[in-house]
Amino acid sequence: MNTIGDIFRVTTFGESHGVAIGGVIDGCPSGIKIDKQLIATDLARRATGTTSSASQRREADEVEFLSGLLDDVTLGTPIAFMVRNTDARPEDYADLKDTFRPNHADYTYQIKYGIRDWKGGGRASARTTVSVVVAGAIAKQWLAQKGVEVKAEVKSIGGETDPERIEALLQQCREAGDTVGGIVQGSITGLPAGLGEPMFDKFQACLAKAMFSIPAVKGFEYGDGFAMAAMKGSEANHSGGILGGITNGEEVCFNVAFKPIPTLGRGNRHDVCALPRATVIVEAMAALVVLDAMMLNS
Amino acid sequence: MNTIGDIFRVTTFGESHGVAIGGVIDGCPSGIKIDKQLIATDLARRATGTTSSASQRREADEVEFLSGLLDDVTLGTPIAFMVRNTDARPEDYADLKDTFRPNHADYTYQIKYGIRDWKGGGRASARTTVSVVVAGAIAKQWLAQKGVEVKAEVKSIGGETDPERIEALLQQCREAGDTVGGIVQGSITGLPAGLGEPMFDKFQACLAKAMFSIPAVKGFEYGDGFAMAAMKGSEANHSGGILGGITNGEEVCFNVAFKPIPTLGRGNRHDVCALPRATVIVEAMAALVVLDAMMLNS
Amino acid sequence: MNTIGDIFRVTTFGESHGVAIGGVIDGCPSGIKIDKQLIATDLARRATGTTSSASQRREADEVEFLSGLLDDVTLGTPIAFMVRNTDARPEDYADLKDTFRPNHADYTYQIKYGIRDWKGGGRASARTTVSVVVAGAIAKQWLAQKGVEVKAEVKSIGGETDPERIEALLQQCREAGDTVGGIVQGSITGLPAGLGEPMFDKFQACLAKAMFSIPAVKGFEYGDGFAMAAMKGSEANHSGGILGGITNGEEVCFNVAFKPIPTLGRGNRHDVCALPRATVIVEAMAALVVLDAMMLNS
Amino acid sequence: MNTIGDIFRVTTFGESHGVAIGGVIDGCPSGIKIDKQLIATDLARRATGTTSSASQRREADEVEFLSGLLDDVTLGTPIAFMVRNTDARPEDYADLKDTFRPNHADYTYQIKYGIRDWKGGGRASARTTVSVVVAGAIAKQWLAQKGVEVKAEVKSIGGETDPERIEALLQQCREAGDTVGGIVQGSITGLPAGLGEPMFDKFQACLAKAMFSIPAVKGFEYGDGFAMAAMKGSEANHSGGILGGITNGEEVCFNVAFKPIPTLGRGNRHDVCALPRATVIVEAMAALVVLDAMMLNS
Repeated sequence: MNTIGDIFRVTTFGESHGVAIGGVIDGCPSGIKIDKQLIATDLARRATGTTSSASQRREADEVEFLSGLLDDVTLGTPIAFMVRNTDARPEDYADLKDTFRPNHADYTYQIKYGIRDWKGGGRASARTTVSVVVAGAIAKQWLAQKGVEVKAEVKSIGGETDPERIEALLQQCREAGDTVGGIVQGSITGLPAGLGEPMFDKFQACLAKAMFSIPAVKGFEYGDGFAMAAMKGSEANHSGGILGGITNGEEVCFNVAFKPIPTLGRGNRHDVCALPRATVIVEAMAALVVLDAMMLNS
Repeated sequence: MNTIGDIFRVTTFGESHGVAIGGVIDGCPSGIKIDKQLIATDLARRATGTTSSASQRREADEVEFLSGLLDDVTLGTPIAFMVRNTDARPEDYADLKDTFRPNHADYTYQIKYGIRDWKGGGRASARTTVSVVVAGAIAKQWLAQKGVEVKAEVKSIGGETDPERIEALLQQCREAGDTVGGIVQGSITGLPAGLGEPMFDKFQACLAKAMFSIPAVKGFEYGDGFAMAAMKGSEANHSGGILGGITNGEEVCFNVAFKPIPTLGRGNRHDVCALPRATVIVEAMAALVVLDAMMLNS
Repeated sequence: MNTIGDIFRVTTFGESHGVAIGGVIDGCPSGIKIDKQLIATDLARRATGTTSSASQRREADEVEFLSGLLDDVTLGTPIAFMVRNTDARPEDYADLKDTFRPNHADYTYQIKYGIRDWKGGGRASARTTVSVVVAGAIAKQWLAQKGVEVKAEVKSIGGETDPERIEALLQQCREAGDTVGGIVQGSITGLPAGLGEPMFDKFQACLAKAMFSIPAVKGFEYGDGFAMAAMKGSEANHSGGILGGITNGEEVCFNVAFKPIPTLGRGNRHDVCALPRATVIVEAMAALVVLDAMMLNS
Repeated sequence: MNTIGDIFRVTTFGESHGVAIGGVIDGCPSGIKIDKQLIATDLARRATGTTSSASQRREADEVEFLSGLLDDVTLGTPIAFMVRNTDARPEDYADLKDTFRPNHADYTYQIKYGIRDWKGGGRASARTTVSVVVAGAIAKQWLAQKGVEVKAEVKSIGGETDPERIEALLQQCREAGDTVGGIVQGSITGLPAGLGEPMFDKFQACLAKAMFSIPAVKGFEYGDGFAMAAMKGSEANHSGGILGGITNGEEVCFNVAFKPIPTLGRGNRHDVCALPRATVIVEAMAALVVLDAMMLNS
């Protein structure tokens, strides 16, 4: 449903053009000091793909905490938060009311719920990732206090890895009204050995599930990933930080493949490429998985 | 832990060189006729990579049902089953008692549990997949009655897709004492629209988690997968049967990357390539995911 | 933790003197019309023990819905709601900052969380039941549409069942600065047969757990309850609507024993007896259990 | 369904007249030495209500462990066990094939599952408590190593507490072909403070749920229980070891009310009173709850 985690649990809510987007974090220990500026920085990364203060000003994703904190320190009780939707423009979507956009969740939502919240894509909208980013920003702060760092960056866009060629490709797409996919590379360092469960809750299985909960993700691999399928045993020696489903204390590295943003339906207000904005979501989801595994293992 | 599924739940048990491998299936409706021969066929596929009756005779993985069936019809109560380990040869592993095999779960198990069941790899052994194959064979029979088919086959080995070239590569590995990885391609047809949950339990997320619970899996993709990361939006039009995390009624196709079997530690009794044996495990895990999603959605 | 239910799930948040009390309802189907006046009536029952419009005006527990509704109809997405705490007077509790109140959760919270939210009892406060009452009011509306009614009323106070004697007892307590316990009697009618699971999730087991999650509850019985412990088999014939853990379609009736409100610690602003206010909480918790069981069974 | 516990999880299986009764314990740490004689003693208590070696010989409930143990020490992997049903006499029930016994689960099972395992009551039979007793015996050994003791004894039968009067009452029932109910009193000592979760998983709520999963239980109370409903606040001062849903380190004491065994349907082979046999089941269920809470809290 709308909850992730067993011990450190995050429940999210909110439609893209409803009153607010938010969540409840359950299982967070008491006594952890939260730096709200770091949350704001991550929300700006999600909204604009940058961390510049200019963009932070422009994007007004302000978090209001409803419970669980006293003077920015966690109480051990559920942490509820919300971000009000200030930019609700349902009229932009009025012409979609009776239309199913191709390659879009409109159709499957209609089938599943019998009702379609046509005002902005409802829960399928990328805006719902706001909740994940806030929860992930809190999780990363706690992990940092334990020496664990979760980082994600753009590895390639449209198959290109060279920054100059990427910029040229993006410019070309902008002019052509086109979009392009790419790969985000994630890395987790400082992990304790022993995380993950041997059978169905292997560390990589939980990480994979979390990544595929991000909209537009089509593939996930860790360590040498798909390349290993073409290797011989005598050539392969990269465990990727996980053995038998359990972390061994080394760095865990992984790749996440994003499809291009659909080109139809919402015109030129849209991004050419979601990748720069996606890195903070990958970090957030990975942080939630790591923290839950650490709490289960402690 | 050792349970998969929310409504159709499978709990597995058994060490590779203990008394028995088995499981408990909870949540299976009553009144379903089970064909035990189909279970035997799948166990033979897991053991030898073939479905020939000769190999079925040689491999004596016989399932004993302890509960949940009356005259081969399900009662609606938990279905417990076990396969006794007749081939327990712990003496083969005596020299490993004080050794950690490289790239093997020995080390991580020692860290996690403080004790290592050195007699055959314990729960990290591929033999534990027996439980999954039995549960999956039951799930597939039920799905078949509802018109859903789950199939998996070898797509490539060592990067080769041509059967003749694959055979040559395997022969070469056999002679060199080497091993080789590959890709299994899965397909689910006849799926109802509406399976999966929009946020953290998207259909592809549950499928990915299940695949990464299979030993030696390093990558998973669905639809056009990683290839989409190099595409433009104007080129991409393959949804892969899932939109917004919810099935749309079309075929769901996916790829699973397996690393080569480690070459060290257990000598020439081992397979050169696990792929032919892996297809039935991929089918079983996929069937468990599909059935659980169908029951949750009904 | 702070979530109840498997399919119809309610997650609650909020400290009694924090920003807001609220919750997230996950798993509510789409298309259900919600009457917000009925929610307001139940909140007034919780706050004052009456349903008079005068008391509704005086008590300003106003619910704000953050998601999940469009024109008062459910969308099938998570329904988040909150009630702001307008009456936060932490200064009233300042003298308790370094005191543990006897027979109060102060001590156990300090042990468990290492930090104590001394401002009004935090999550142990009766005010947190606001979340349950809102969720329960929604559940009851849905149940009513399916012909199921959940009702609770005061059965006895201080051992008295006669209204006149109860009133005399309450008056006597008021004058003496004392408090008194009592029993709430619950009834569920219109239940379908077949709810509940045979082993650990028997219908009565889920109901009992829900009742013991209400603050101050010390006992629960259903059907003839404790009286049956003194009966012979030849005398006992009241199943209480449940056989083998599964409902049989008859009325389920039960009793819930409340201890007296602790007399120390918060002075004369307090109720003499929580029973009149408790009935709506009993109804709410029972409704959540019934609805979850019905969805699991459907 | 058929699983209890979040971290220390027990899944049970088996019909009373099927092949075997058993279970899988998941989440038990490695390195715990198990005394199988203590398990046998508890099984004898369940079968006969005594711990005498004579009755142990007569009752052949022998446990076979299928996994999870090496030389009677836990491996940290799932512990699967079974007790074969040697006394299966389905012919005794042949005349019940088309009959619904009054006040029995026959009817509700038929409604729920559409099929009725008429051979001995299936999963509703008291025999299924074998699984719980084995798991509980293991849990109690572990708790004992941590200084926690769970004890249950008969408090009253047919309303009588004096042993001589109880014996007279039982004799009278035996002669009249009647049965009689009673109360089991439980006690948990050595508990650490801090167990239980404040909202829906209060310690007493989990304990109540576990007790109501025992067949024939009609009521549960802790501390002063129902008596408190007749008390004034100035008289009540017994917390019962739990405050705000969280243990305070004192003894937790509770009462469980059992209805009389139904007099119809299975003739004079049956007990006059289940109470002496029920104490070990109460202990087992309580031990499972305590251990799960301790693991969740550690």
